[in-house]
Amino acid sequence: MKKRVCVTLTSRGNYGKLKNIIRQIQAHPALELKVVLGGSLVLEKYGRILDSEIVDSFLVDHEINFVIEGETPTTMAKSAGLAVIEFANAFVNLKPDMVVVIADRYECLSIAMAATYMNIPLVHIEGGEVTGSIDDSIRHAITKMAHLHLPCIQDAARRIERMGERREIIKVVGSTSFDVLKELDLTNLEPVRDYQKKAGVGKLVPVDPGAYLVVVQHPVTTEYEDNLAHVRQTITAIHEQKMPTFWLWPNMDAGSDGVSKGIRVYRESHQPTHVHFFKSLPLELFGPLLANAACIVGNSSSGIREAAFLGTPTVNVGTRQNGRVRGQNVIDVGYDAEQIKDAVRKQFVHGAYDPDLLYGDGNAAGRIVPLLANFEFRIQKSGTY
Amino acid sequence: MKKRVCVTLTSRGNYGKLKNIIRQIQAHPALELKVVLGGSLVLEKYGRILDSEIVDSFLVDHEINFVIEGETPTTMAKSAGLAVIEFANAFVNLKPDMVVVIADRYECLSIAMAATYMNIPLVHIEGGEVTGSIDDSIRHAITKMAHLHLPCIQDAARRIERMGERREIIKVVGSTSFDVLKELDLTNLEPVRDYQKKAGVGKLVPVDPGAYLVVVQHPVTTEYEDNLAHVRQTITAIHEQKMPTFWLWPNMDAGSDGVSKGIRVYRESHQPTHVHFFKSLPLELFGPLLANAACIVGNSSSGIREAAFLGTPTVNVGTRQNGRVRGQNVIDVGYDAEQIKDAVRKQFVHGAYDPDLLYGDGNAAGRIVPLLANFEFRIQKSGTY
Amino acid sequence: MKKRVCVTLTSRGNYGKLKNIIRQIQAHPALELKVVLGGSLVLEKYGRILDSEIVDSFLVDHEINFVIEGETPTTMAKSAGLAVIEFANAFVNLKPDMVVVIADRYECLSIAMAATYMNIPLVHIEGGEVTGSIDDSIRHAITKMAHLHLPCIQDAARRIERMGERREIIKVVGSTSFDVLKELDLTNLEPVRDYQKKAGVGKLVPVDPGAYLVVVQHPVTTEYEDNLAHVRQTITAIHEQKMPTFWLWPNMDAGSDGVSKGIRVYRESHQPTHVHFFKSLPLELFGPLLANAACIVGNSSSGIREAAFLGTPTVNVGTRQNGRVRGQNVIDVGYDAEQIKDAVRKQFVHGAYDPDLLYGDGNAAGRIVPLLANFEFRIQKSGTY
Amino acid sequence: MKKRVCVTLTSRGNYGKLKNIIRQIQAHPALELKVVLGGSLVLEKYGRILDSEIVDSFLVDHEINFVIEGETPTTMAKSAGLAVIEFANAFVNLKPDMVVVIADRYECLSIAMAATYMNIPLVHIEGGEVTGSIDDSIRHAITKMAHLHLPCIQDAARRIERMGERREIIKVVGSTSFDVLKELDLTNLEPVRDYQKKAGVGKLVPVDPGAYLVVVQHPVTTEYEDNLAHVRQTITAIHEQKMPTFWLWPNMDAGSDGVSKGIRVYRESHQPTHVHFFKSLPLELFGPLLANAACIVGNSSSGIREAAFLGTPTVNVGTRQNGRVRGQNVIDVGYDAEQIKDAVRKQFVHGAYDPDLLYGDGNAAGRIVPLLANFEFRIQKSGTY
Repeated sequence: MKKRVCVTLTSRGNYGKLKNIIRQIQAHPALELKVVLGGSLVLEKYGRILDSEIVDSFLVDHEINFVIEGETPTTMAKSAGLAVIEFANAFVNLKPDMVVVIADRYECLSIAMAATYMNIPLVHIEGGEVTGSIDDSIRHAITKMAHLHLPCIQDAARRIERMGERREIIKVVGSTSFDVLKELDLTNLEPVRDYQKKAGVGKLVPVDPGAYLVVVQHPVTTEYEDNLAHVRQTITAIHEQKMPTFWLWPNMDAGSDGVSKGIRVYRESHQPTHVHFFKSLPLELFGPLLANAACIVGNSSSGIREAAFLGTPTVNVGTRQNGRVRGQNVIDVGYDAEQIKDAVRKQFVHGAYDPDLLYGDGNAAGRIVPLLANFEFRIQKSGTY
Repeated sequence: MKKRVCVTLTSRGNYGKLKNIIRQIQAHPALELKVVLGGSLVLEKYGRILDSEIVDSFLVDHEINFVIEGETPTTMAKSAGLAVIEFANAFVNLKPDMVVVIADRYECLSIAMAATYMNIPLVHIEGGEVTGSIDDSIRHAITKMAHLHLPCIQDAARRIERMGERREIIKVVGSTSFDVLKELDLTNLEPVRDYQKKAGVGKLVPVDPGAYLVVVQHPVTTEYEDNLAHVRQTITAIHEQKMPTFWLWPNMDAGSDGVSKGIRVYRESHQPTHVHFFKSLPLELFGPLLANAACIVGNSSSGIREAAFLGTPTVNVGTRQNGRVRGQNVIDVGYDAEQIKDAVRKQFVHGAYDPDLLYGDGNAAGRIVPLLANFEFRIQKSGTY
Repeated sequence: MKKRVCVTLTSRGNYGKLKNIIRQIQAHPALELKVVLGGSLVLEKYGRILDSEIVDSFLVDHEINFVIEGETPTTMAKSAGLAVIEFANAFVNLKPDMVVVIADRYECLSIAMAATYMNIPLVHIEGGEVTGSIDDSIRHAITKMAHLHLPCIQDAARRIERMGERREIIKVVGSTSFDVLKELDLTNLEPVRDYQKKAGVGKLVPVDPGAYLVVVQHPVTTEYEDNLAHVRQTITAIHEQKMPTFWLWPNMDAGSDGVSKGIRVYRESHQPTHVHFFKSLPLELFGPLLANAACIVGNSSSGIREAAFLGTPTVNVGTRQNGRVRGQNVIDVGYDAEQIKDAVRKQFVHGAYDPDLLYGDGNAAGRIVPLLANFEFRIQKSGTY
Repeated sequence: MKKRVCVTLTSRGNYGKLKNIIRQIQAHPALELKVVLGGSLVLEKYGRILDSEIVDSFLVDHEINFVIEGETPTTMAKSAGLAVIEFANAFVNLKPDMVVVIADRYECLSIAMAATYMNIPLVHIEGGEVTGSIDDSIRHAITKMAHLHLPCIQDAARRIERMGERREIIKVVGSTSFDVLKELDLTNLEPVRDYQKKAGVGKLVPVDPGAYLVVVQHPVTTEYEDNLAHVRQTITAIHEQKMPTFWLWPNMDAGSDGVSKGIRVYRESHQPTHVHFFKSLPLELFGPLLANAACIVGNSSSGIREAAFLGTPTVNVGTRQNGRVRGQNVIDVGYDAEQIKDAVRKQFVHGAYDPDLLYGDGNAAGRIVPLLANFEFRIQKSGTY
């Protein structure tokens, strides 16, 4: 009898990170894959990433809706509540032997609640890290509910253990997104050039190695009111830099409206000729784009993790990545246009760094999937306090 | 400007424990009380404890409904999801400066999610303990979301700190239910005798100090299928003991149906003359009843905590209280009628124990309420890892 | 390609009425059956009718939960809302070509909303009747959403047409529950005698043709506050009548708590020796019981419909069946113990009536199922105004 | 004791229509106003109409969220379900003596369910009309639940009566939006010119009386798949017409994504210089804009109703307004660019029509509010069949 593994996909970021795991579960003789799709992934306006020709397909077993419009802390809470109900519906229909959840989005705690309340073993990928937002509370709360921890990095594993989890249920596997990066031809920027012509808004900008910036700035949910002011500092810096720039739209979270608004107003009022805006970019395109960037600017975790793996210089803005271990490639700055510009200039002078395997070596799925097949779950947790 | 404190009441147990705190918040010049009532407390069939003449009244500011019928793990999960939505509604209307949640019921994590996602500081009473059920996961997950921890006991405080919480936000306050016990005349069994005549089912049984048993057996959510079999062992033991017994109905949880069914079938088929069944008993009556019992049998936390404070002998059955620190008054046994009978006999021979202040001294509210008034919350948590 | 018919079952009453239709859909070469089970049918405490050995089995394709505890008008409204979400989940998974809903329970409008908002043709059985409660609003609202109307009776069909529905989508089919009655050996009371021994509470009472009463009194949702007082009148009448009586527990609706409470208090305080209480009775047992009763008392529609078909005398109490066409077998009385007693005595003197085919001839399923297979639905409704 | 009237606002259209009623309720000595705000009105991205300087303010007593992202029939159904729960929460907190709902949006049936299930009298404005979409089913279902009907027009009143409603609870009041129109200086286009500079996207276009078009095309929910193709015909017609045009964004409904997409693609690919796009326009601006338009094109009810009152020529496209009584000012066409262009040209030649009071005289609020104060509601409905 095959073990039924339910993988939950609720954002494009998660999809990229879980793609290789999904593929290897499908190929594993002792495992049966069940995929639940929800959140921004089922919303056309956020870019139908899964229908894209450039990503490979798989069967979606259950599609759910839980995002209540509003993008305020209140609707985030309510959406999380609705997500518990919807995931419970998915699980009662799919009857999985385990549920896999990754990282720390607000709906991930909903997934963890639904699974553990229903006595289904919970596997948590990317736990134990420390950033600096409500995500920390979510990530650690999931840790206290999970039955198998698969952190990227030893530092995170130690933290999970210190939180009272038994060592036997913690396995360091490395970052799952590096598996995808490793398979790509990172020197080939042609697909990015093509994609620019058919997606995104703004003028076409040149895509030459080491000669463009990538910007990703997400809202920080505990700084709800300030997100607009903060993104404006980044906008000012980028606008004045006058370098070819690819700006990626933020995640859909409470506060994203502030960030989105800042970007939208900038775009419409200034109509900048050196910035191209993407709503969404699959890892297959984002990988080469990041690998050849002069610098990535903003507060995305990809500036800390993927950029380390690729050796790309990073200017990390503000508090969102506080507490995450980082490599040599990162310069931290505040929400300040001048600081951002200075740091970008420094990184431009420095150029690419040596790759740093701090967050993994590109073989995470190869470690994770055999574990899913063989791990003996104990549904009643016990701590080592 | 007064600080607005929202206290959430979702079960009779929580009500008893929070009553003194509610009273002192009402009396505090710098605090404004807001009460949200939900769960079993708004359901008549579980005993309208709040309408009872023997409990003092206060204003309910918002009443919510979240219990989806079914009493299965799936409906528990869905109820938890609905609770997030309903509590978010309460909070957006009441606009509290902080939310107080106690212990580890399934809806407590919903309260924690709603509050923290909405950037409202969360105060958690009775965190850090270890029992042996899904409650552990819930309690610790709440710990990782809370902004102020008020555990009963030093052992729990140490565990909270080891989970990565900063020492400055952890204050040991003792058990809140002892505050109520301390104010009662515990020698007076007359109200229990009276109450027996008008509430509960079954024959009247004599209420003489040291000459009756109290039984409370709750379902264990991670042992869903076994609850009926387990309670039957306790039933057999109690039935054969032939001592006057007060049996308290279990909490409404996934699995309570198994336990309830066992009790109901026993009552209807055997019509025992030495057992009186109560659906619900306010702490004002439960205090004297427990203080003078020959022994408390089952898996209620009151056998570990209140019984220690009162010196009442306890026979603790099964896994539900695993990992909780216990005093001299407790004998642990498995789900086995013979073991239970033996232990009850031993406790009967031993008689009352010396009071043990292990879980508090009866002045918890006096420590908690000034903290609520003066504590400087930091909404962005940071750990000491 | 078979047409996929989704049948929704949410109460024991609906189950009995739809059983034959389910069977014939299963047998039809052009139809594929999908069953959604919800409401009281998934709650053990209301009697697991479907697990009973005496009913035949079929596959449940989707199980849903929507009953929010509380039994107040507010929780009825919220349950109806949750039902919309849950049925939408069922429909999106089952992808039916049509949805079948019967009668007028509060969740039936939820089913109608989910189906029509999702552009799925809606088939409504038992529309067009007039009773005298919120059920009227619900039933007629469903009529205005349905794409095929299958009323029991010509009078109802005329009313549907007058409400603006096109004559081509209205087909009189007779009452579906008579199909089941027709197949039973209505003279055989042995199964009822057996069942009494293993189910229900109260003393065993003799089951002799023409020598016992059947009582069914449901709450009236628009008379929420009065339900307790009303049922007490019936209780007084029945108590004083001293005839063997089978009392069936009310439906789970807002207000049932008042009715249930009245019955419970009566049972526990008086412990009547001539009344046996059933929580639930499948039509297979209810049919012979009703067919041989001296009289049915209360406000159940079975007193108006099934009793007419069987020729059983009826004492109809209060407003709940106002406006329903009735046969010679019915005496209407108010909420008054004396009136009830008088009417029961009159019916006892009269004895059985001639069967009246007013509400159908026992071949409803034989008319309905071919219609489901062949009807050409027009999803955009148009009226004949 | 004042009667408490709860007015529900869930879209900008409803807000405009109810504004005068709200004002007169506030001013009435026997009435107390309670406003529930929800749906698109609480979503910033759909234009924070209520914060606008040009609309007058009032207190919002309860804000709710029910729009689940997705804009598919499934999410529309789920949103409707969530709306029932959220409105039930509002009503249980506000304790209104009656609830006022207008017209036929999908959430209006949710409002009707919550109110009637909670035994709160329901007042329905704009019932009884016939258009040609799922709105018909919704509107008529609400009619069968409402306790007081306030249609605009005699034709609608007759239809309500034929649906079985008692004549005594039907009062023709005229269209509420004309009240607002009547108070405006409809000759003054200056505010529209100003507004164009600060809101909307696209080039500024001249606003000269009789020399511009207004386009409003909403999705038709029962033609979900075709909405994109349909709007493209209108786009082609408008693009080739080369007249100054104001295009108003569609309502947020299942299918609006198809319409929105069509408009967005057109705007971005063609960057038309003669079209200005507004997301939202308060009636204060829409009134003068419509009053002076050469023609209104699309499928908005304002082309049928407000345009008749103002004498503005209308080209009505497709099925959405099927069955609504219309004045001389309307030319009906199919989803066909050529037909649309021809009709626009004809209307341009004809010029303004005489005002037609078919849908009201601008004094609806003056009829409605005294009715709310004095009407004796009967919560148990009874029909005249």
